[in-house]
Amino acid sequence: MSIAEIGEFGLISRVVARLGSGPRALLGPGDDGAVVAAPDGRVVASTDVLVEGRHFRRDWSGPADIGHRAAAANLADIAAMGAEPTALLVAFCAPGNLDVAWAEELAGGLSAEAALVGASVVGGDMSSSPTLTVAVTALGDLGGRAPVVRSGAQPGDVLALAGRTGHAAGGYTILSRGFRTPKMLVEAYRRPVVPYAAGPSAADAGATSMIDISDGLLQDVGHVAAASLVAIDIRTDTFTVPPAMRDAATALGVDPYQWLLAGGEDHALAATFPPGATLPEGWQEIGTVHDGAGVTVDRKPWSGPTGWDHFR
Amino acid sequence: MSIAEIGEFGLISRVVARLGSGPRALLGPGDDGAVVAAPDGRVVASTDVLVEGRHFRRDWSGPADIGHRAAAANLADIAAMGAEPTALLVAFCAPGNLDVAWAEELAGGLSAEAALVGASVVGGDMSSSPTLTVAVTALGDLGGRAPVVRSGAQPGDVLALAGRTGHAAGGYTILSRGFRTPKMLVEAYRRPVVPYAAGPSAADAGATSMIDISDGLLQDVGHVAAASLVAIDIRTDTFTVPPAMRDAATALGVDPYQWLLAGGEDHALAATFPPGATLPEGWQEIGTVHDGAGVTVDRKPWSGPTGWDHFR
Repeated sequence: MSIAEIGEFGLISRVVARLGSGPRALLGPGDDGAVVAAPDGRVVASTDVLVEGRHFRRDWSGPADIGHRAAAANLADIAAMGAEPTALLVAFCAPGNLDVAWAEELAGGLSAEAALVGASVVGGDMSSSPTLTVAVTALGDLGGRAPVVRSGAQPGDVLALAGRTGHAAGGYTILSRGFRTPKMLVEAYRRPVVPYAAGPSAADAGATSMIDISDGLLQDVGHVAAASLVAIDIRTDTFTVPPAMRDAATALGVDPYQWLLAGGEDHALAATFPPGATLPEGWQEIGTVHDGAGVTVDRKPWSGPTGWDHFR
Repeated sequence: MSIAEIGEFGLISRVVARLGSGPRALLGPGDDGAVVAAPDGRVVASTDVLVEGRHFRRDWSGPADIGHRAAAANLADIAAMGAEPTALLVAFCAPGNLDVAWAEELAGGLSAEAALVGASVVGGDMSSSPTLTVAVTALGDLGGRAPVVRSGAQPGDVLALAGRTGHAAGGYTILSRGFRTPKMLVEAYRRPVVPYAAGPSAADAGATSMIDISDGLLQDVGHVAAASLVAIDIRTDTFTVPPAMRDAATALGVDPYQWLLAGGEDHALAATFPPGATLPEGWQEIGTVHDGAGVTVDRKPWSGPTGWDHFR
């Protein structure tokens, strides 16, 4: 059954039935607006959009996968500010001939990823469109913490990473060459595993800057360096190439460090900490902050691509 | 110059330059998330998406107009909860060959409409897409008020309207027949004039239910009737047909009450008040709430279309 057959309001009622509720949702879907608890007295908000053909392909990812990824991309941004996610709102645009079950499973994926952090889908909008598009806004609560911005890194700070990089990029390359294994990388592309709790814990540990690695470590750490007016050096000896990744990279003729350093969409978090700070659980030192500008790898410029531009 | 030529980050910096800041924006665009004041301890949030060909046409509306409309649709939802808008986030999807100036003017329109209520654009995302799409999320603050939901109307209540209906529908019909006048209706379609302050003032005056009229008065009041388990009757003698609307309707062979009662996109607010309540400034009584179900016009069923379905 297509979504055109059941119409906007029929689709809304079916999709809403797939959404759980969270402790922060004071008023969920079905009214002009949702009401979400903001006990801190400030709300963190971030928006990310996924467009078919640009951010996902329906033959590579199922609707639940795409829901998980769309939610993760947004929830990771909230965590990267040092906040805890509370709610998602979703604008869903699709051709009228899309199967209703596809939309329902997308909603299920969005809701399930949000539930990992105690958040829920509280509202949204739907429209027909020739292009399947999922725009998500996430809200979060700082719980009394100062927001951790990109501009606070200081020379002498340590650069640390929580979560994994290069896995989604490996999966993307594998799928784009027509393969389906190794499963570890393909599944990492389909559903990122995001270290959500590492965001607030980094804030509590005094992180001076933080960013969600969505476009690639080098590019995103480059944003931190630019905003903080510092140079950042990444040490490759701090990275371990998992055997499955090494084998896949060898088979495909790719440098696995290209995936690790420039691959996006795993939604790891990178943060800088003052020298001597004890890194919280899940954080690992991968580099250092210096006077200067730009990002280097083992003190040298990186020669490959550094990340993703959504208009190029 | 096209947006593909300047790339995602070039576009972001140009668009952000068009955005003003508001008193509620504690941290604006440029980081993983924005931080917005939520002094009430709860945040109201709503999302609306506009898709080219479905919600707007570039030959009918300029980019600033479309920005105003996209913002208005969302800000009106916040007002309809009894809250004051604080911030917007915008997901913008466009073909790479779109002119940069078009995107800049869109941002200017979004920002200018938000500024009418002291809000500002605090964040968003951009992607290339074959389909020009603007998804907006608005946030708002209740200022200690209880949210005014759709389900609170009681038999005996008065139905009241703030703002105008039928103007945007008239403008839409005029443009769709290839005309450009009367300007009053065409401009109403291009840039709705929304009674934002009437939302919080209705909440303060004890409104029992409220809704933003986005799809048409009959359809949206029907949502109130359904959610409240009541019947609502609208009296046509409470409406005045402006001379320019009457003339245009006559020339086009349209019943102007079809525009007034079933036309959407003016973003008037409808609310119910207890019997005997003094209506705040800007609100006018247009009907009554009864035992039963459904919406009638002068105590009779409405024979024409009642509103808009975005998948049909």
